[in-house]
Amino acid sequence: MRITPENVLVSNLGPRLAKSPLPLSTDPADNMGCFIPDESRVRYQVELNTGFDSREDVFFEKAGPRELNFFRPEETRAAIVTCGGLCPGLNNVIRSAFLELHYNYHVQEVFGIRYGYAGMNPAVGKPPLKLTPDLVENIHEEGGTILGSSRGPQPDAVIVDFLVKEKINLLICVGGDGTQRGTHDIYTEITKRGLPIAVVGIPKTIDNDLMYVYRSFGLSTAIDKSREILFCAHAEARGAINGIGLVKLMGRHAGFIAAGATLASQIVNYTLIPEVPFALHGPQGLLETLRKRLKKRTHAVIVVAEGAGQDLLRDAPQEKDASGNVKFGDIGLFLKDQIAAHFQKIGVTVNLRYIDPSYSIRSVAANCDDSLLCDQLGRHAVHAGMAGKTDVLIGYWHNVFTHLPIPLAVAEKKRVSPKSELWRGVLLSTGQPKEFTGPGQTLDRPRPLDAAH
Amino acid sequence: MRITPENVLVSNLGPRLAKSPLPLSTDPADNMGCFIPDESRVRYQVELNTGFDSREDVFFEKAGPRELNFFRPEETRAAIVTCGGLCPGLNNVIRSAFLELHYNYHVQEVFGIRYGYAGMNPAVGKPPLKLTPDLVENIHEEGGTILGSSRGPQPDAVIVDFLVKEKINLLICVGGDGTQRGTHDIYTEITKRGLPIAVVGIPKTIDNDLMYVYRSFGLSTAIDKSREILFCAHAEARGAINGIGLVKLMGRHAGFIAAGATLASQIVNYTLIPEVPFALHGPQGLLETLRKRLKKRTHAVIVVAEGAGQDLLRDAPQEKDASGNVKFGDIGLFLKDQIAAHFQKIGVTVNLRYIDPSYSIRSVAANCDDSLLCDQLGRHAVHAGMAGKTDVLIGYWHNVFTHLPIPLAVAEKKRVSPKSELWRGVLLSTGQPKEFTGPGQTLDRPRPLDAAH
Amino acid sequence: MRITPENVLVSNLGPRLAKSPLPLSTDPADNMGCFIPDESRVRYQVELNTGFDSREDVFFEKAGPRELNFFRPEETRAAIVTCGGLCPGLNNVIRSAFLELHYNYHVQEVFGIRYGYAGMNPAVGKPPLKLTPDLVENIHEEGGTILGSSRGPQPDAVIVDFLVKEKINLLICVGGDGTQRGTHDIYTEITKRGLPIAVVGIPKTIDNDLMYVYRSFGLSTAIDKSREILFCAHAEARGAINGIGLVKLMGRHAGFIAAGATLASQIVNYTLIPEVPFALHGPQGLLETLRKRLKKRTHAVIVVAEGAGQDLLRDAPQEKDASGNVKFGDIGLFLKDQIAAHFQKIGVTVNLRYIDPSYSIRSVAANCDDSLLCDQLGRHAVHAGMAGKTDVLIGYWHNVFTHLPIPLAVAEKKRVSPKSELWRGVLLSTGQPKEFTGPGQTLDRPRPLDAAH
Amino acid sequence: MRITPENVLVSNLGPRLAKSPLPLSTDPADNMGCFIPDESRVRYQVELNTGFDSREDVFFEKAGPRELNFFRPEETRAAIVTCGGLCPGLNNVIRSAFLELHYNYHVQEVFGIRYGYAGMNPAVGKPPLKLTPDLVENIHEEGGTILGSSRGPQPDAVIVDFLVKEKINLLICVGGDGTQRGTHDIYTEITKRGLPIAVVGIPKTIDNDLMYVYRSFGLSTAIDKSREILFCAHAEARGAINGIGLVKLMGRHAGFIAAGATLASQIVNYTLIPEVPFALHGPQGLLETLRKRLKKRTHAVIVVAEGAGQDLLRDAPQEKDASGNVKFGDIGLFLKDQIAAHFQKIGVTVNLRYIDPSYSIRSVAANCDDSLLCDQLGRHAVHAGMAGKTDVLIGYWHNVFTHLPIPLAVAEKKRVSPKSELWRGVLLSTGQPKEFTGPGQTLDRPRPLDAAH
Repeated sequence: MRITPENVLVSNLGPRLAKSPLPLSTDPADNMGCFIPDESRVRYQVELNTGFDSREDVFFEKAGPRELNFFRPEETRAAIVTCGGLCPGLNNVIRSAFLELHYNYHVQEVFGIRYGYAGMNPAVGKPPLKLTPDLVENIHEEGGTILGSSRGPQPDAVIVDFLVKEKINLLICVGGDGTQRGTHDIYTEITKRGLPIAVVGIPKTIDNDLMYVYRSFGLSTAIDKSREILFCAHAEARGAINGIGLVKLMGRHAGFIAAGATLASQIVNYTLIPEVPFALHGPQGLLETLRKRLKKRTHAVIVVAEGAGQDLLRDAPQEKDASGNVKFGDIGLFLKDQIAAHFQKIGVTVNLRYIDPSYSIRSVAANCDDSLLCDQLGRHAVHAGMAGKTDVLIGYWHNVFTHLPIPLAVAEKKRVSPKSELWRGVLLSTGQPKEFTGPGQTLDRPRPLDAAH
Repeated sequence: MRITPENVLVSNLGPRLAKSPLPLSTDPADNMGCFIPDESRVRYQVELNTGFDSREDVFFEKAGPRELNFFRPEETRAAIVTCGGLCPGLNNVIRSAFLELHYNYHVQEVFGIRYGYAGMNPAVGKPPLKLTPDLVENIHEEGGTILGSSRGPQPDAVIVDFLVKEKINLLICVGGDGTQRGTHDIYTEITKRGLPIAVVGIPKTIDNDLMYVYRSFGLSTAIDKSREILFCAHAEARGAINGIGLVKLMGRHAGFIAAGATLASQIVNYTLIPEVPFALHGPQGLLETLRKRLKKRTHAVIVVAEGAGQDLLRDAPQEKDASGNVKFGDIGLFLKDQIAAHFQKIGVTVNLRYIDPSYSIRSVAANCDDSLLCDQLGRHAVHAGMAGKTDVLIGYWHNVFTHLPIPLAVAEKKRVSPKSELWRGVLLSTGQPKEFTGPGQTLDRPRPLDAAH
Repeated sequence: MRITPENVLVSNLGPRLAKSPLPLSTDPADNMGCFIPDESRVRYQVELNTGFDSREDVFFEKAGPRELNFFRPEETRAAIVTCGGLCPGLNNVIRSAFLELHYNYHVQEVFGIRYGYAGMNPAVGKPPLKLTPDLVENIHEEGGTILGSSRGPQPDAVIVDFLVKEKINLLICVGGDGTQRGTHDIYTEITKRGLPIAVVGIPKTIDNDLMYVYRSFGLSTAIDKSREILFCAHAEARGAINGIGLVKLMGRHAGFIAAGATLASQIVNYTLIPEVPFALHGPQGLLETLRKRLKKRTHAVIVVAEGAGQDLLRDAPQEKDASGNVKFGDIGLFLKDQIAAHFQKIGVTVNLRYIDPSYSIRSVAANCDDSLLCDQLGRHAVHAGMAGKTDVLIGYWHNVFTHLPIPLAVAEKKRVSPKSELWRGVLLSTGQPKEFTGPGQTLDRPRPLDAAH
Repeated sequence: MRITPENVLVSNLGPRLAKSPLPLSTDPADNMGCFIPDESRVRYQVELNTGFDSREDVFFEKAGPRELNFFRPEETRAAIVTCGGLCPGLNNVIRSAFLELHYNYHVQEVFGIRYGYAGMNPAVGKPPLKLTPDLVENIHEEGGTILGSSRGPQPDAVIVDFLVKEKINLLICVGGDGTQRGTHDIYTEITKRGLPIAVVGIPKTIDNDLMYVYRSFGLSTAIDKSREILFCAHAEARGAINGIGLVKLMGRHAGFIAAGATLASQIVNYTLIPEVPFALHGPQGLLETLRKRLKKRTHAVIVVAEGAGQDLLRDAPQEKDASGNVKFGDIGLFLKDQIAAHFQKIGVTVNLRYIDPSYSIRSVAANCDDSLLCDQLGRHAVHAGMAGKTDVLIGYWHNVFTHLPIPLAVAEKKRVSPKSELWRGVLLSTGQPKEFTGPGQTLDRPRPLDAAH
């Protein structure tokens, strides 16, 4: 699904007749924050003459509190659910959404669904938790999610039955593209039954691979923690003759964490991401390139995103996890073995240290930047829901929060464009030879965004 | 000076005839980063129908490496100077600019000017330092600036004499608006003499108050560290009956740090910034508001930016520092005294803890986000300079790096708009009463940006 | 009161007839932790032939769980109170004491007294909080104290009335020497009334100035945070010509934080502590010494403990705080003014940056080492109380936890011995000239401990 | 080799005739640090009546600067070598040893040996590095070792030839027990040739398993970082139904890191260390115990030291690394597989997250406590060497630095005593059932230290 002026339009539950209780104004001359007119828009494309096509006629709906809402606070019962793997900031999102509902909109009943969508299926889940100010007081300083999470869908009809039974008319779903597809299915079922229930998504992808979302929460923290790991790998590499630090980072379809951590640390020599194929063997391949560097500099740091080089692993059988994601062959262990075997074969002693931080990245508390982002995401989801927006994600584009139709957002994955500022930065910072990530193979290459950033 | 289609135009030293040595491409189909066409542009305005005026016809020049440059690497001698107060990221900027010049452009001679502009006045300064890879290897993990810094200008003629004598034809000046005014003066003197010397500025303002620069480096780190201090103030406030934590943060003309730290910490009850006047006395004033809160909640946290409430300090004599900035009356100590006196007068025992972190914020190493920003700023300054751009700042707008004419950038200061997402967030997060930061006084109120974000 | 074989003896409430429910053993051959025999002892003196007197005949009672206790869990009601200023680790102590009582001793009723001793005076305080596992779950990751604190005593009779009324027979008091004097007074009143109530103290002094306690909790964290501040001061000092970083740290009577942070950071040039007088003026004084260093090295970092150089401030009037502690003249501001004035007078431009971190050190969460210490302190207080030990502090000596009679502990303050490893380390690390902290003045000099460490 | 009054005696190169240049005193009345008399001693045993044997007649030699030395500074050439795996604090040790030699003893020539013992074998290594103040200035803020390291010995004769040729008469060797055995061999060769060369060891074992060294450097940092990982595992475990966080930590023969991180984090449910065998199967085994806990609490955190449960892995073939250490079977992966298989077999869905932080713990910069320790270790090695002590390690016992004969130190490994404060703390904090780590199996159990701490 390509973005068009039509498919950025957002679904609404109905007319907005309820005056917002928020202490904001529409007077341009006072010192108060302001309501956002429903017709406010944010351009899709902000760059011109970049050598790429650009869409000048596409605009997103701007997010923000509306002066008139669909829901009256006293008739609103809200629920929040967190799905999929952990991501730094989940507790912040829960907390800010709750506080916005409780203190600013005066919504009396806000529930936390336990352990993902399973918590809305009475046959398998636990009953929801009533949220209170005491309960959420300090949760934004901790990793994980106080609600628990789980992978995989539940039957839409069961979920909507649950919402009806619990009289929940505003459901906020925090999760990745699988979760959001589920959110859209819930919306479809609600629509089929003609119910006045809003479903609003908050995009959660630590890999940052959601389309039309410039930066998703957790990414900044993940880069932060990954940078620490890279400094470790660097210390290891420099601490031994022919020391090689090899680090596997998250990034199944998109190399934002690997590329970001490369730039943030400035000590990486080779960055391997899913979007850019690389050769292992041959005179331009990683192994020979690495040999030359060791000869000259005696140490090297390599970062590989988990989804990189999958063509090299083609023969491994494919598995799927509970969310239906294809399980990837382990490129980290593969490279570790290949490098070790190669240097043994050519008779060069190397000291190879492999680090796979695994769950120790995604389970930490949000850093400061993600805290800021999560606070806004949580509150915007509430504003959107109270206004009766539904089947909508809170997007973030050119530093403005937007309303993004879920079907558009999940139609394809966002990737690192090899033409972007980010990848150019990686090339200039690592100095990795251009031949070795050359244009030869096109498999798994993303279509560049209209513009290059 | 208001922004217009004309005054965003950037000065160029002359025709670009030198082919760039960078390993980038113009082929849209390969996996390489790409050169940026000189005619690439970034929109000033990205929002529509927000209720504020917007300028649809203004575009900034997009920054980035050019395929053709003005300078040939072998004829280039570059220098970097850091001016004004410390800011997290200075060493990162120095390091990335040097590495870009050295490894990617193969410029052989890069100098670090010692202790600010003074280092270009042989009568008062120390000779420059020749930069090397060894020297800069780990500096990005440390606060401060390895070059040293100082405040205040030096005679333009003396500086240009120095550049001529040292054969420096690319000067990168890292500093705030005072520094950049100096950079413009140097440019003027160079132009008068008709010399082929480029001067490129990198904006440095921890307060984030430079126009047309969405986020300046150091801000994120400052918010990070300020958040830590706010958690301390919160622990103090909650640890005593009627505990009040009062924290003074940086922000002479703009409250971005105070507002950002408020949102990042989520534990502040009153946020006072220069852009929004507040009353101290009276039924809607801070003191009475605070009394009511203590009665109900027994503790409170107040954040005040150093430039807030200057109208309340009007009688204090005005001083200026070496850069010519007006020295501000100390609103932190003033509030501390006023609060103590008020509660003593009304017979309520309070436990007031005042924290002024002063230099312990600006002197730390850059956090991860600022590291990313500084790396790009340093490299873009080099790209701009090599292309022969001059009298230009590296701007950052809608997440794209831009070329910004210095006179435009320094014509006025950027402020927090009370109509912005940021200030709305503060109001919704603190719950501070709208009456107490009401519209009454207009002194020192910023003109809102064209759009509200 | 000098330590003697007699006055290290600990008071006991009575015979121990209740078998401990702890899952420990007395079998030396199994893999279980073991009960501690009541007659276990720890030597006061561990060094010989150091050139100082040593006491070979003094032994402390070793702390630890007893196989037989005075109290039966089902008849025990316990309470915890935190008094005085914040200190990193208070929440850890509360949590571990509670968990030990709740899970291991199966004591059903454990209360948290609100806001210090005031919480046991119904006329002024708030009712106690019933502690639960949920309530304390994550508190060890936060600074401050969830119970609140306050300074100053309450009438002993009122407190004992409260204990009787609430049926509390085990009171754990966390606080400094003022608090512990109060604990002793409560013990005296209990004894007068012949009540079977145990009072056990946990020493809390971030300054580490309690006698016979090698390291008190909070010290390690304070050194950690102070080190960060010193790195800031170093960056500031090096960032300007003749930059001087002046940092005031905690330490009213003892310079452990200042000395520790000096060694931990390794970047301090002058360390000024209460125990070692220094001259300001004259050829060997700080000012002249500083001038010489600036001439040679162009920057300097000075650390001053708040209680240092009080003789220089002698003319300032003395105040007392609510705990009755003498308020100190501000040596930090005094030095700042003196240094500024001196260099102005002699016509040398300096860039002096003064940092007073104040409350931002003591209010952070405990670091790892303090977490370990606090956990043991909390649990040992419970073991001691259940065994019927009373009027006793949990001491820490040669890395073994001890039972320390309160009157002995509070009879005088512990200080940094100028003959200690610590001070020798400071001298060798700073290289500060020996003349300037010379032997001339003896005011305020501590009696050296028997041994020098 | 059992400790006896005889075998704690330290070797000396010869009479001490050179007056120390250090600015210390022997006057008990001044404010200077003091020289340590050569006859100063530290007791081996500090506890009495603990139910264990104790040795009252054994004393270590106290470390510290001597008033009279064997070496004259102007005739001294020193070298520092770091061997074996990385450990937090290596750079701190290098830096402090160098600074002490350079600034305080005025030794002009100090060399850093490159990449371990290999750097003293010209046939395989690189030439040494001359150390300077500039070179070491900031290294204590970084992980790793600027000298590089390597495993394994080199021929003693070759090393002594190197020392003679380079005129090095003071060699400081930083490394574990393998390294120290090498140091002793070098000493033997030196003695055989009758050379006036001192060799001094600094114990480096992140596992803390060196006898007569209470705490070795790196341990505190390792516990710090491990605690972070445990909080991650806890977030993961709580974030999923039947979530199990399984973390493998360092500790080949001794569980100090695992036990310490357990106490520091307070969130571990099962701690498995080499010293305490545990059953996997059966009604008291880990698997059944875990099942019961999940049923009750729905999550669990397990920590396993890498050397734990080796009896369970008995069938795996044994390998050795370059230092000759037996390579351990991977108990972490083994447990992961066993737990997964068991719960699959009994039809219980669990969410098992395995974290092996591997090299990301040992390669970080030293924390504050380790910085303090390393500074003293580096300086004491210099004091010892200048005094002509040889074949000696710097020990640390009851918080006093000692001189420890190398043969005594390496004769056996230190272990966690199941009777210690530390293990008791683990049992009381985790609440792990005593049956499951019961007394049944005695394999691999350490002989308890004379006393239990």
